[in-house]
Amino acid sequence: MNILVLNCGSSSIKYQLLNMEAQPVLLAKGIVEKIGLPLGIFTHKPEGKEKYILEKPIPDHVDGMDLILKALTDKKYGVIASLDEIFAVGHRIAHGGEYFSHSVLIDEEVKAKIKACSEIAPLHNPAHLKGIETMERLLPTIPQVAVFDTSFHQTLPPKAFIYGIPYEYYENYSVRRYGFHGTSHKFVAEKACKILGWDITEKKIITCHLGNGASITAIDKGKSVDTSMGFTPVAGLVMGTRCGDLDTGALLYICDKKGYTSLDAVRLTNKESGVFGISGVSSDFRELTSAADAGNYRAELALDVFCYNVKKYIGAYAAVLNGVDLIIFTGGIGENDERVRNSVCTGLEYLGVEFDEAVNLKARGVDRILSTPHSKTFVMTITTDEELVIATDTLNLVK
Amino acid sequence: MNILVLNCGSSSIKYQLLNMEAQPVLLAKGIVEKIGLPLGIFTHKPEGKEKYILEKPIPDHVDGMDLILKALTDKKYGVIASLDEIFAVGHRIAHGGEYFSHSVLIDEEVKAKIKACSEIAPLHNPAHLKGIETMERLLPTIPQVAVFDTSFHQTLPPKAFIYGIPYEYYENYSVRRYGFHGTSHKFVAEKACKILGWDITEKKIITCHLGNGASITAIDKGKSVDTSMGFTPVAGLVMGTRCGDLDTGALLYICDKKGYTSLDAVRLTNKESGVFGISGVSSDFRELTSAADAGNYRAELALDVFCYNVKKYIGAYAAVLNGVDLIIFTGGIGENDERVRNSVCTGLEYLGVEFDEAVNLKARGVDRILSTPHSKTFVMTITTDEELVIATDTLNLVK
Repeated sequence: MNILVLNCGSSSIKYQLLNMEAQPVLLAKGIVEKIGLPLGIFTHKPEGKEKYILEKPIPDHVDGMDLILKALTDKKYGVIASLDEIFAVGHRIAHGGEYFSHSVLIDEEVKAKIKACSEIAPLHNPAHLKGIETMERLLPTIPQVAVFDTSFHQTLPPKAFIYGIPYEYYENYSVRRYGFHGTSHKFVAEKACKILGWDITEKKIITCHLGNGASITAIDKGKSVDTSMGFTPVAGLVMGTRCGDLDTGALLYICDKKGYTSLDAVRLTNKESGVFGISGVSSDFRELTSAADAGNYRAELALDVFCYNVKKYIGAYAAVLNGVDLIIFTGGIGENDERVRNSVCTGLEYLGVEFDEAVNLKARGVDRILSTPHSKTFVMTITTDEELVIATDTLNLVK
Repeated sequence: MNILVLNCGSSSIKYQLLNMEAQPVLLAKGIVEKIGLPLGIFTHKPEGKEKYILEKPIPDHVDGMDLILKALTDKKYGVIASLDEIFAVGHRIAHGGEYFSHSVLIDEEVKAKIKACSEIAPLHNPAHLKGIETMERLLPTIPQVAVFDTSFHQTLPPKAFIYGIPYEYYENYSVRRYGFHGTSHKFVAEKACKILGWDITEKKIITCHLGNGASITAIDKGKSVDTSMGFTPVAGLVMGTRCGDLDTGALLYICDKKGYTSLDAVRLTNKESGVFGISGVSSDFRELTSAADAGNYRAELALDVFCYNVKKYIGAYAAVLNGVDLIIFTGGIGENDERVRNSVCTGLEYLGVEFDEAVNLKARGVDRILSTPHSKTFVMTITTDEELVIATDTLNLVK
């Protein structure tokens, strides 16, 4: 029961092959990069074997997938004997719009809906579709499943997803809050409840997925009721290079002053902003922390702004939930940056948080309770695994 | 000790004349509208006398002020015998940038700074300057004071006022969170503490100024530490016709789809959005409530979105303050709309709020405690009076 998990971007394909018998086991993972550019890169990491790197032109996604499938079955670098050992393929799909509140087996209708969402996810969905069609060509008999970044958030009530703009933009242009990182938020909430022996349908949980992209979700009885990303993944928290919540009047002012087109503004808010933009140093939190320690004011400010915004969202979602039983940190920063977690949790005593700084200090890349035994509200760090969610959903739907 | 309070817009002048001896007493108020248009309107309401309305062309601010000064000293409609009875003039100034953290006596330097802020408040500050210069001409010997909408919020720490965009926009273009409604937030917080016999420097207060414009402020020990409006007054809460917080990606998407310029986008987000845009009915909460009661889904949704956003900000600011002692409602909606207050306060039990629905139901345009005697966190409705703040600051600075 091997599941191939794919995340197809416009010029890249990330993949993992997982054996889902009993305990899931990673067999191989890798990435094809710079598809369509003069020189592509293929990096294949089979478990227990040597890493394989190839640099050559990779004209399109078919060539890229071909490299992956050959590597998976290669005598030297492979991990399976033949492609027949792939039971199903699971695709990470960025945007399911209002069509999908669950993962689904891919058929023509599903493809049409993913295509329909390309309008509001022009950078991602066309690439996902290309990936799906490539697999249909290369592995025509193997079922494929779509797992959406947005579907977990389809339980948001209208008061949480409707923006304060003319309603016609929702009706005619599908402009609303969708939210992203859904698989991660759902996964860590369920995993934490399993660890704690809790029934998720009785609990109020706030999940903080803090990575280069970052979002926070309010989960009530297992359902997402609000989330910080919006129509696009640029909203909500200040991120690595994304601006997060920003006065639209400020952006329009900048566009006016600089003579920016909306394309310039998209670049500014997505690629040049966030902690990178504030600090001028880096979007990498380790580099920011080093710079801050070395006395760089703007690096310290960037970290302050980030942690402050996380704290404000936790507060807002505590109000949405009328209290909170558990706060979860996940993602590269949430799992590994003890300073961020400490800064966020300091001053949440009013919520019943008693944070164990000593435990926090040593918790990196593990699942651990960070609150004291007396804490009314639990705080945990939980490692996320979006590929595992995709593989699990795929397996369940195909079985 | 009569103080003339002025709020000069680009085509209007609002005024109040207050006697500040002992208890402040309103002597007259009114408005000059449609300055520069073919037909202007002047409405003068002297206390205890008949209202006076005049329609005629009012070419510029000098003509407008002239009408006001004549009416104030008019035999029939006047309230003072001569202009000598005006002790000082207080101006409401929308934007003081980072220059002003307090009200100030106006001199050439102050005027230059107000002018410098015109860049970031192009609709308001030039009009205010026109008002100041008009008064210098008409009442050259009378001192004038500037009271800023922004100055109370100058205590915000950098982590609360820096946006997640390249720092150069702060350094070179002054783009940061400023916040507005400062006089109102300060006034109601201090008034409530006076009523409760509290020392404001020991308290955590969240003030909700809910009118056609609406903002929320976190006040720690008497100082504003965060506020929902931003670089412009369009950010934060969904308002009458302003969009409030909106994914910049959504706005850019709309601009792209509609071929909007940034001027179009400013109009959309300022004039066509908010509860008006969601409902398609009105920006007036009484009309929205009637429509919702009559079964209009979008009117109900607009009210839901509004109240939900207020609640989220209260939650966020409780996190900023690590708890809250007092939540204050003020402004036209905050003082009079018991349904909004009820909707916002339902579900804040986690903060220690015990809301007295029966008391709330009857509290309109009064200062009243809306929480039960056992409530850990107090909730109040407090009537605001920005003109009184301006008059008081003016009197204190001139004396």
